[in-house]
Amino acid sequence: MATTLITGGTVVTSTGRADADVLIDGEKIVAVLARGSVLLGTDLTAGVDTVIDATGKYVIPGGIDAHTHMSLPFGGTAASDNFETGTRAAAWGGTTTIIDFAVQTHGQKVQDGLATWHGMAAGQCAIDYAFHQIVGDVNPESLLALRGLPDEGISSYKMFMAYPGVFYSDDAQILRAMQVAADTGLMTMMHAENGPAIDVLVEQLLAQGKTDPYYHGVARAWQMEEEATHRAIMLANLTGAPLYVVHVSAKQAVEQLAAARDNGQNVFGETCPQYLYLSLEDQLGASSDEWGNFEGAKWVCSTPLRSKEEGHQHHMWQSLRTNDIQMVSTDHCPFCMKGQKDLGLGNFSKIPNGIGSVEHRMDLLYQGVVDGQITLERWVEITSTTPARMFGLYGKKGVIQPGADADIVVYDPNGHTSIGYPVDSDGNPTGRSHHMNMDHSAWEGYEIDGHVDTVLSRGKVVVTDRQYVGQKGDGQFVRRGLSQYLI
Amino acid sequence: MATTLITGGTVVTSTGRADADVLIDGEKIVAVLARGSVLLGTDLTAGVDTVIDATGKYVIPGGIDAHTHMSLPFGGTAASDNFETGTRAAAWGGTTTIIDFAVQTHGQKVQDGLATWHGMAAGQCAIDYAFHQIVGDVNPESLLALRGLPDEGISSYKMFMAYPGVFYSDDAQILRAMQVAADTGLMTMMHAENGPAIDVLVEQLLAQGKTDPYYHGVARAWQMEEEATHRAIMLANLTGAPLYVVHVSAKQAVEQLAAARDNGQNVFGETCPQYLYLSLEDQLGASSDEWGNFEGAKWVCSTPLRSKEEGHQHHMWQSLRTNDIQMVSTDHCPFCMKGQKDLGLGNFSKIPNGIGSVEHRMDLLYQGVVDGQITLERWVEITSTTPARMFGLYGKKGVIQPGADADIVVYDPNGHTSIGYPVDSDGNPTGRSHHMNMDHSAWEGYEIDGHVDTVLSRGKVVVTDRQYVGQKGDGQFVRRGLSQYLI
Amino acid sequence: MATTLITGGTVVTSTGRADADVLIDGEKIVAVLARGSVLLGTDLTAGVDTVIDATGKYVIPGGIDAHTHMSLPFGGTAASDNFETGTRAAAWGGTTTIIDFAVQTHGQKVQDGLATWHGMAAGQCAIDYAFHQIVGDVNPESLLALRGLPDEGISSYKMFMAYPGVFYSDDAQILRAMQVAADTGLMTMMHAENGPAIDVLVEQLLAQGKTDPYYHGVARAWQMEEEATHRAIMLANLTGAPLYVVHVSAKQAVEQLAAARDNGQNVFGETCPQYLYLSLEDQLGASSDEWGNFEGAKWVCSTPLRSKEEGHQHHMWQSLRTNDIQMVSTDHCPFCMKGQKDLGLGNFSKIPNGIGSVEHRMDLLYQGVVDGQITLERWVEITSTTPARMFGLYGKKGVIQPGADADIVVYDPNGHTSIGYPVDSDGNPTGRSHHMNMDHSAWEGYEIDGHVDTVLSRGKVVVTDRQYVGQKGDGQFVRRGLSQYLI
Amino acid sequence: MATTLITGGTVVTSTGRADADVLIDGEKIVAVLARGSVLLGTDLTAGVDTVIDATGKYVIPGGIDAHTHMSLPFGGTAASDNFETGTRAAAWGGTTTIIDFAVQTHGQKVQDGLATWHGMAAGQCAIDYAFHQIVGDVNPESLLALRGLPDEGISSYKMFMAYPGVFYSDDAQILRAMQVAADTGLMTMMHAENGPAIDVLVEQLLAQGKTDPYYHGVARAWQMEEEATHRAIMLANLTGAPLYVVHVSAKQAVEQLAAARDNGQNVFGETCPQYLYLSLEDQLGASSDEWGNFEGAKWVCSTPLRSKEEGHQHHMWQSLRTNDIQMVSTDHCPFCMKGQKDLGLGNFSKIPNGIGSVEHRMDLLYQGVVDGQITLERWVEITSTTPARMFGLYGKKGVIQPGADADIVVYDPNGHTSIGYPVDSDGNPTGRSHHMNMDHSAWEGYEIDGHVDTVLSRGKVVVTDRQYVGQKGDGQFVRRGLSQYLI
Repeated sequence: MATTLITGGTVVTSTGRADADVLIDGEKIVAVLARGSVLLGTDLTAGVDTVIDATGKYVIPGGIDAHTHMSLPFGGTAASDNFETGTRAAAWGGTTTIIDFAVQTHGQKVQDGLATWHGMAAGQCAIDYAFHQIVGDVNPESLLALRGLPDEGISSYKMFMAYPGVFYSDDAQILRAMQVAADTGLMTMMHAENGPAIDVLVEQLLAQGKTDPYYHGVARAWQMEEEATHRAIMLANLTGAPLYVVHVSAKQAVEQLAAARDNGQNVFGETCPQYLYLSLEDQLGASSDEWGNFEGAKWVCSTPLRSKEEGHQHHMWQSLRTNDIQMVSTDHCPFCMKGQKDLGLGNFSKIPNGIGSVEHRMDLLYQGVVDGQITLERWVEITSTTPARMFGLYGKKGVIQPGADADIVVYDPNGHTSIGYPVDSDGNPTGRSHHMNMDHSAWEGYEIDGHVDTVLSRGKVVVTDRQYVGQKGDGQFVRRGLSQYLI
Repeated sequence: MATTLITGGTVVTSTGRADADVLIDGEKIVAVLARGSVLLGTDLTAGVDTVIDATGKYVIPGGIDAHTHMSLPFGGTAASDNFETGTRAAAWGGTTTIIDFAVQTHGQKVQDGLATWHGMAAGQCAIDYAFHQIVGDVNPESLLALRGLPDEGISSYKMFMAYPGVFYSDDAQILRAMQVAADTGLMTMMHAENGPAIDVLVEQLLAQGKTDPYYHGVARAWQMEEEATHRAIMLANLTGAPLYVVHVSAKQAVEQLAAARDNGQNVFGETCPQYLYLSLEDQLGASSDEWGNFEGAKWVCSTPLRSKEEGHQHHMWQSLRTNDIQMVSTDHCPFCMKGQKDLGLGNFSKIPNGIGSVEHRMDLLYQGVVDGQITLERWVEITSTTPARMFGLYGKKGVIQPGADADIVVYDPNGHTSIGYPVDSDGNPTGRSHHMNMDHSAWEGYEIDGHVDTVLSRGKVVVTDRQYVGQKGDGQFVRRGLSQYLI
Repeated sequence: MATTLITGGTVVTSTGRADADVLIDGEKIVAVLARGSVLLGTDLTAGVDTVIDATGKYVIPGGIDAHTHMSLPFGGTAASDNFETGTRAAAWGGTTTIIDFAVQTHGQKVQDGLATWHGMAAGQCAIDYAFHQIVGDVNPESLLALRGLPDEGISSYKMFMAYPGVFYSDDAQILRAMQVAADTGLMTMMHAENGPAIDVLVEQLLAQGKTDPYYHGVARAWQMEEEATHRAIMLANLTGAPLYVVHVSAKQAVEQLAAARDNGQNVFGETCPQYLYLSLEDQLGASSDEWGNFEGAKWVCSTPLRSKEEGHQHHMWQSLRTNDIQMVSTDHCPFCMKGQKDLGLGNFSKIPNGIGSVEHRMDLLYQGVVDGQITLERWVEITSTTPARMFGLYGKKGVIQPGADADIVVYDPNGHTSIGYPVDSDGNPTGRSHHMNMDHSAWEGYEIDGHVDTVLSRGKVVVTDRQYVGQKGDGQFVRRGLSQYLI
Repeated sequence: MATTLITGGTVVTSTGRADADVLIDGEKIVAVLARGSVLLGTDLTAGVDTVIDATGKYVIPGGIDAHTHMSLPFGGTAASDNFETGTRAAAWGGTTTIIDFAVQTHGQKVQDGLATWHGMAAGQCAIDYAFHQIVGDVNPESLLALRGLPDEGISSYKMFMAYPGVFYSDDAQILRAMQVAADTGLMTMMHAENGPAIDVLVEQLLAQGKTDPYYHGVARAWQMEEEATHRAIMLANLTGAPLYVVHVSAKQAVEQLAAARDNGQNVFGETCPQYLYLSLEDQLGASSDEWGNFEGAKWVCSTPLRSKEEGHQHHMWQSLRTNDIQMVSTDHCPFCMKGQKDLGLGNFSKIPNGIGSVEHRMDLLYQGVVDGQITLERWVEITSTTPARMFGLYGKKGVIQPGADADIVVYDPNGHTSIGYPVDSDGNPTGRSHHMNMDHSAWEGYEIDGHVDTVLSRGKVVVTDRQYVGQKGDGQFVRRGLSQYLI
């Protein structure tokens, strides 16, 4: 097996930094050494196959994006990144593991849904991947299947309080599933928005001729996120199930989570880059020659962008500092404007929901370090270590220590990254500045004071010298254990 | 320099575990290796001076007790452990660093107070030590001295809202000091009890003939801890100073801290083993042939023991889980019953305040792991990693990584520890079961399902085979940097 | 028209007391006079038809019970009091107005439901009555009918978050109705329990053989009341509708209401005597020779009795003092044990839900005055003045002032009332001690240190000398205006 | 004795309205009658001495201003209104009772301070007056004197957490006084600002050359009001004393009060018109030819004006609606600009603290009714009924009912009041538009959509036809009983 030594860098963990070198043997980290790599008189650099010079750079555990939706069927189309394109883009961005969502649709067996997703991902991925299980049809059979998920290496499942008629589960169904979760240690992930109420508002806005993308955010009022978050918390309280609320965007929802934790309940929240940087006001003001007001469709996602004037973004950064929000995923679910988002021209409710960010999460959060919002250690914690601990990957992923997979990113704080999807004067892309399969960028114009320099996935360099050098199928399915956070 | 290899154990960090070996060269850790210690074909065990077999045991960073008071003058006597006896007992208990408090008394220069403490500790200690600075006289000169503390390797200072006439600072003084702290990055540590109000209650209780030790806790009502905690938080809010409240015992005080953090304020809290296990009811019920009701004097400390019926202890464990309380120190401040505590016979207010626990903190908290109150990782976090991060020791202390001091404890989960100070039928000690300089134990009868097996301080084994093998003066003064938690 | 003078008493209002006489002309109060009844030299006692001596007694506005269910069809039977028996019992107990609930069932027109209730009540009542409207089927037609209710003298409507398949409305329906309410000033009354979740627990308990009445309270966990209360608050927040939560029994639900009010939201809560006095522990311990453990069926109501150990009853009294709960109604919905409650033998979910208290509310709350829980003024406020203000009856009802209906109770603080339904040694009633149509009393053995002395309904004495002297049909339908609490 | 009949008006109470006439015999109300004044066939209008036509107008209980400081010595000068001028201005504005503050200064006997104030007020007042007692020197003797206050007709006392060296009491003193209050039923009134901390900020601002009036508000930061409010609450919690916080201006202080009440504690808060309408931004922007930036001195009061951007004023109105603030007083403490306020030219801390509003409170609050902030009933409640209940005047004052003093205001909702102190082109007053002894108005330019039409004090008309027709000495000292709010 090939050996690699990463020398001269600063290893950053969730708790601090070390001037240390990392020795890799095959797919695994085998040692973390005092910088200099001379051990008991032996210079290790001489004996290894590859030496990576990380001088002046950060050496961090590869990013774990715990919330992606490759190829997800939604609204009559499907997410534009499949497992090949999406995981390759992730690798470009310093993410070495994704946890995607297998879907059980209504009337389907859980096992069949899971098998479908295994089929879509196997042999396609650039980096390792795992699955959460979406449960779209709670019945005695699917509840029994839930109990078997840990044996499949799947320790979390997701339910939706939104999307009636599609993924929606009612409170009775949620209660039954949470009882299984409390019993088995499965983590309950919740899309917490009151779907039935929101659908009324959607219908009314459309009836009033308010069809622009902006009204998507008006319809999905923060009150309905706060409400559903609280409801999920109380169902979890009743059953004793741990709870993880996905894509939290409203500060009031955070306050519900914080209050529950202060009260001793085992609840967690994830936010996404879009809720830290983008706003409803941005969406309202968005306009282009090509799309007019429909330009805002690029940022149609659920939960929606929130008002900056109401202070949600500020509160979300604060919550990352105080650990009232524990981690950041992307909810990567990209759709092209042409042929996908444009299904909702004249009717915002027909716009496929989703933003593509899997490639940019590490960079966008690093910018938070530069801006003084979070510490360097917290960056590692919320992008890698906590996701690993939360979802049963820690030890294998999320940490640089002997025995762990050599999923490592060398990050250059002196580098620079310009995000966008530039077009020439004829409106044609001038060359891909991102690697996701999208015809636009939701992050056009964002400038990052740092750069993903080198990416290793299980010991293999997959990105270096601004080139992708891995290949389809490098990534493998990863079985997950139970969450570390079950007390 | 001597080399040591700790093999076969499970390295426990604040975030997880690893089957890993630790290589030490002189005083420093130089590598953490995959278990087996064969690196690039070389068996490291062959080349080291000493191999410590940690099979079946935990390998953890040495404990850091951030709150001790060796030889502290108090109430006309002085704490019965000096730096020699106290740090040796600490070593016995798996603590390899203490942060003690240098005292500036009224009318004294800060520098002189600090020099006195340096003088008392130098050459006496079994393990490394650092100092916080108590500021007992705020004036322009001492405020200036505060600014110079970081250059002395002292990054935190403590004030008292209790003890009028002794250590007490009024709100104007606290405000001025916190302004300096906000400016310099010094951490403000606060004894948060409303001393002037408490002293009224003390006077009234004594006047009513309520002189037993139990009334110490009655006088120091939780309302006066909650109040002072809130007041300290608001002064910190006004000045922008980070705040660390010491020895939190009332659940309502925790709620104030939690609310402030949820609100984005940079505040922290420490609790102590006595507030997790012992109760006011215990103290009320305490009686012995020798001391009668005065037996309760053993548990006179401030803040006092709280009522179990009111649920403080339960809440304190919960707060350790939710991180509303960030770490556990001892507030080690021992006094013998004979000649010290008995100064308060007939007047509880004359009992020197303090409990001796420096030897037992690691064990008592480990029992929380056994009892399911906290995880193994959280044990390491609250006893070592967070103290190091909080008080500017991390990297050197608080973590097992290359470059760190080799302060390491091998802890045996299959061992057993009986705490106490047994006496024979004549009332004479039958042999010291603890090593603190006390004529009793506040923890008599506590049984721990684990044992401190081996303790290394900067690479030197100081406790092994149930023997102390170090010597006076092993421990050195450690300069501290600023807290990691300044954002 | 006949004239009446009530002399010598202490008129108690919601804000204080006055030594004053009350002059009635026909159905109306025409003057409140300084005690002595000599006005500008004229002795009014000489000129009136009737003088009622209230010396040493309280003269208060007649009670308003804003929550009764006469003849309500429920669970295959119907409430055992009809409008004749129920309103007569109310009169006995010092209540001179009830607000009952007209029901629109699924598939029915609102107007038809209302007409049915008008038909049941007309000509039957001993005291005045009004209606709230239950909306059991939200659709465009019923929403339109809602808008017309104020013209019918009905200014409030009720929805159920409990009882799926019966009265239940989902969140989409509630949202639509609240929009109408925000627009029209209708008060939304909410039965706030998460019915779908509770039904799962019911099913599971029954499957485990837990069929006793006690399990009714276990199934209807406080979490599901707190949750639904919060949800109703957020839907009201979103729509701007004022909200009134009925029969609040869980302290955590009160906390939700209090937080919403502190936050400026226009929300209210009602509790009932059973939640102030009775407990789940009482129900668990209830047993009789006749019924065994099924004795507990007497106290099966929804929301259920709550645990005394958890402190709900204590908190409910406190909330009455702090105005976090604004008023007390009975939710009078009586069922006999034989032939009604016993439908649930072997299956608690088949027990008709309800307790009969319409006769005892004024007495039970007065006992709170005697016990020091509330002031005399607060007694009047929560039983009469606030109900009148809340539901658009004030001026006509709820106050003793010129122009108001002469609905007056003379209450004797030196009297005594023993509540119960005594049986002889053969188990036969020995004479009715209450006047509700029930074969038992939920309040057996309660002793009240006060007594309803005389009751006037619109100027006519209906109870005096421990005799009912009114007649069927005395009571008339009262049209209500909008709530006073719409800002 | 003369008899008066007020006919045709709408009597407004704290709970509702009535079309009713009011009959007065001498100093007392003797009857409230159905409008028309024909009683048992007799037309009462014929038999009375005076008929006041209130058609189209509101008839309300005279205002009670529970917080005034006539002639108060402060900062080397004294409030510019004495009891004669101040109470006459109050009468003009519809206030018929003031509760002023007798002062015990340091070293003085409580009784002597009280006697001084009796001496200043006796024979001078236009309307009735009562006293609270300021306790400026807590010692065994003054604590004993406190116990005797109820016998003097004084049921409340005030302490200051602000103004060290003047009125300031420390926490030990407050605790001792509150113990007496808990025992006797005295209401503790608290000026809740952390004086020692504020004085540091004052000193520092002045040292930085920030001497303008605006910096008064900067120094008195909301954090220090919130803090002191919380501290007072906790001392009250510990002792069981009821608490009334004066001149609350910070929304965070209201939140502390609300939380304490929700928690069952017996605490209350008063705000003042300036905290409802005026802002720190107004003060910052204030400038005039005469005074330049010192113009802002007109609004120097403590607690200070708060920032509108932070939303304090909005929250204060909200709190009046939700009863988190229970009543509105003025804290009337006027100082002229020339010769008084100008003591602080170049040093804001030398500006006498206070605003004159005793004449405008009823009007300014009525404007809140017009603006939709509060209901008409709430206006009466917060300006008269609650003050009477809070401070033991109810029955005699604060209500229109038989037996009460005939303190009545006829208020014209169709009238108009322009507030201000206009000057001609030479800068000379053109005629007094207010009647307070001030050379300016803090309320210049405020327009009120209503007017005080007629004012009766104990049956005597003192203001009518825009003329003052009473005389010095009309007003008498009123003995007060205990607060109604002691449960």
